Amino acid sequence: MTCALCDADGGALVWRGAKLRVIRADEAGFPAFYRVVWNAHAPEFSDLSPADRQHCMEAVTRVEQALRDTLQPAKINLAALGNMVPHLHWHVIARFGWDSHFPAPVWAEARRPAPAGELAAVQARLPAAEAAMRARLEDSPWPA
Amino acid sequence: MTCALCDADGGALVWRGAKLRVIRADEAGFPAFYRVVWNAHAPEFSDLSPADRQHCMEAVTRVEQALRDTLQPAKINLAALGNMVPHLHWHVIARFGWDSHFPAPVWAEARRPAPAGELAAVQARLPAAEAAMRARLEDSPWPA
Repeated sequence: MTCALCDADGGALVWRGAKLRVIRADEAGFPAFYRVVWNAHAPEFSDLSPADRQHCMEAVTRVEQALRDTLQPAKINLAALGNMVPHLHWHVIARFGWDSHFPAPVWAEARRPAPAGELAAVQARLPAAEAAMRARLEDSPWPA
Repeated sequence: MTCALCDADGGALVWRGAKLRVIRADEAGFPAFYRVVWNAHAPEFSDLSPADRQHCMEAVTRVEQALRDTLQPAKINLAALGNMVPHLHWHVIARFGWDSHFPAPVWAEARRPAPAGELAAVQARLPAAEAAMRARLEDSPWPA
């Protein structure tokens, strides 16, 4: 048995803590697509202890807040699916009205090509977004 | 400004608490598709206070646990998207290897028709699943 998220970070590492890490995913059409990956192997959210669930969602919230502060997205999408890779990971995705699928979910059919200018403008702000994530993730107090 | 989840429950009511409610959604091909809907209008998860976020995810967890205990799904899918209805609601979906989309997300293209016999068998167990949800949601202690 091998697990892609036990064997590797799963994307460009933004921050690593003792219990979880944040990675930037490379998903065409979505310039600000992050994942909070639980470090230990656990398929379902409810496999975590109450304290670990709180810790996990605190990280998801801090990533969401950093994206909202720096990118002003139309909406944040959160999801823990794991049908293909049953190792707990939360998608934290900044959505924009002009993105390839909005307002459909990122897993639906594309509605349009994402416009290059808007994509580039968000991509230029990712270093600031990731600095904001790291600042929030290193901030205290951290519950649990 | 009207909001579909301010104006109505949004599905068949399973349980209502002071801060949130649980409804069963009618989504073709997915026999056990529930939503935890925050009662007050809030677009994003991070709009909630830390105590309310904990309360919300505790409800999501209890619904997930009830689905796991009663239906033994292949996977639970959790998601808060809200691109169409920006009022915080968590999809809590029991997924099965035979369902219309597995292992793809429920928002992707269907891969097959869901087999009638398996659908009916899950549907027959929904009263037990919902009784388990209510029992867990009424149990104490409830954090926050």
